[in-house]
Amino acid sequence: MYDLMIIGGGPAGMTAAVYVARKKLNALLLSKDVGGQVNWTLGIENYMGYQFIEGPELIHKFEEQVKKFPLEMKVGEGVSNLSRINGGFEAKTDSGETYQAKAAIIATGKRPRPLNVPDEEKLRGRGVTYCATCDGPLFVDMKVAVIGGGNSALEAVDDMVKIAEHVYLVSLTQLTGDQILIDKIQAASNLTMFLEHEVVAITGEKLVDGIKIRNLKTKQEKGLEVSGVFIEIGLMPNSDLVKGVAALNRIGEIEVNCNNEASVPGLFAAGDVTSVPEKQIVVAAGEGAKAALQAHRYLQRLS
Amino acid sequence: MYDLMIIGGGPAGMTAAVYVARKKLNALLLSKDVGGQVNWTLGIENYMGYQFIEGPELIHKFEEQVKKFPLEMKVGEGVSNLSRINGGFEAKTDSGETYQAKAAIIATGKRPRPLNVPDEEKLRGRGVTYCATCDGPLFVDMKVAVIGGGNSALEAVDDMVKIAEHVYLVSLTQLTGDQILIDKIQAASNLTMFLEHEVVAITGEKLVDGIKIRNLKTKQEKGLEVSGVFIEIGLMPNSDLVKGVAALNRIGEIEVNCNNEASVPGLFAAGDVTSVPEKQIVVAAGEGAKAALQAHRYLQRLS
Repeated sequence: MYDLMIIGGGPAGMTAAVYVARKKLNALLLSKDVGGQVNWTLGIENYMGYQFIEGPELIHKFEEQVKKFPLEMKVGEGVSNLSRINGGFEAKTDSGETYQAKAAIIATGKRPRPLNVPDEEKLRGRGVTYCATCDGPLFVDMKVAVIGGGNSALEAVDDMVKIAEHVYLVSLTQLTGDQILIDKIQAASNLTMFLEHEVVAITGEKLVDGIKIRNLKTKQEKGLEVSGVFIEIGLMPNSDLVKGVAALNRIGEIEVNCNNEASVPGLFAAGDVTSVPEKQIVVAAGEGAKAALQAHRYLQRLS
Repeated sequence: MYDLMIIGGGPAGMTAAVYVARKKLNALLLSKDVGGQVNWTLGIENYMGYQFIEGPELIHKFEEQVKKFPLEMKVGEGVSNLSRINGGFEAKTDSGETYQAKAAIIATGKRPRPLNVPDEEKLRGRGVTYCATCDGPLFVDMKVAVIGGGNSALEAVDDMVKIAEHVYLVSLTQLTGDQILIDKIQAASNLTMFLEHEVVAITGEKLVDGIKIRNLKTKQEKGLEVSGVFIEIGLMPNSDLVKGVAALNRIGEIEVNCNNEASVPGLFAAGDVTSVPEKQIVVAAGEGAKAALQAHRYLQRLS
């Protein structure tokens, strides 16, 4: 039985791993992949210490740092289920293996809800992005489309009208975000809204060059030339593994308190899978460190 | 009147500055210095992205990153007082200048409580350290002294007995930390405790080579050869500027909720000055980003 299992290999899980390894805990990191969403990030200007770095390069640096320590890491082992056992937790992986530990940190992240339209996957990281805060400043003076009608789409629009040459907002419904945000963006002179429209395709060979949209009422289709497509229709937390074990909020995120404790003693969580609202690399790293130090304190006090 | 003032120029304040600048807020950063406690950190192995980096070098990288953005920065301007005014806050600096903003982020950090013994200041960062979690792994197989008798000292001892050749614990009083930690450290074979002893001097030319201690009862003095001295007698939050404005906890830290909001609308705080228990660079950076994004959201919703 390990002291601690870390489940997830993105910024939160890897930071937790470094902190835990430095405490010489007998720990195991299990993850489907290394880097998670960061692998899809076009360029990062807001991870402190690097003025500009590509997602995969930053992840490589994190991974090297983890590997400096003698911590057991099993990559390619997604955890499908975590259950409580006497004295701790048991993880069952996709391949059917089981691992046990006295405490666990869940850092399985989120996955963006995709539009599921042609060429979206191919152009991911090539103009298709799922995070305006992360990637917005890379589209200075370009034309972009923001897809969605809720708060995150409206916040993205409010940011992008200051940065981009022109912003198209495409929403399946009328706007559903806060009125104050709706009022604010309607004042922008470089915004065109297509409400009750759907996106039917994203186009481009190596980089995005446009989108095709359809009016839901008239069924009329229209092409828009854009270099960036911000898909802001929500993210899905990878929290299925703890369903029934830990409390989740209404959007499926693991509820944590300020100390990264989930609703079960010995269970901690960090990063995008949690109820912490900011989904940012530096925040996930900070939360991973907090979760690791809290888990260490929990184990120090176990008799 | 600025949209936002950031007070403090350590990891939390500088990260907040980058996030705020990317949101194109009209913001001002005021700070006594750049880097805060990180300037005194011997070497950093747990800031993700750098396997090993000296404190001043990391701070230089942070500073360059902030300066890439058109954000106003006044360094050398410590803020002695922050007060509420109509529509926001007013900061008064040590030099008597005043600045006003609709919202403020306090990131003024902490300062370690010093022993106030000869040569402590001279040998700071040269074997004298105030953070076992940060610097402990640098003293592998060396002799070290931990000064203090509370939980942070005991946690430092528990860490260091696994790393160092020998650990001396020197405390003015009997141990005051949790019993479970006391039990745990007493099992270590490489620990010698000097309770009811005071440290009268730290010695060494360029690097620490020892400490001199005195038995409080017998007044007998004794020298101990050590390469590292971990002073764990507490830290003092730099929160005087908001006394009477924001709620502080019993040790003087600014009380924040999970969203980095202090007790007053529009006032946010991040990093070591807050009630967040983990005092780590990566945590401060993460909290700075959270505070900045929350402040941005607050300003977006101001009419």
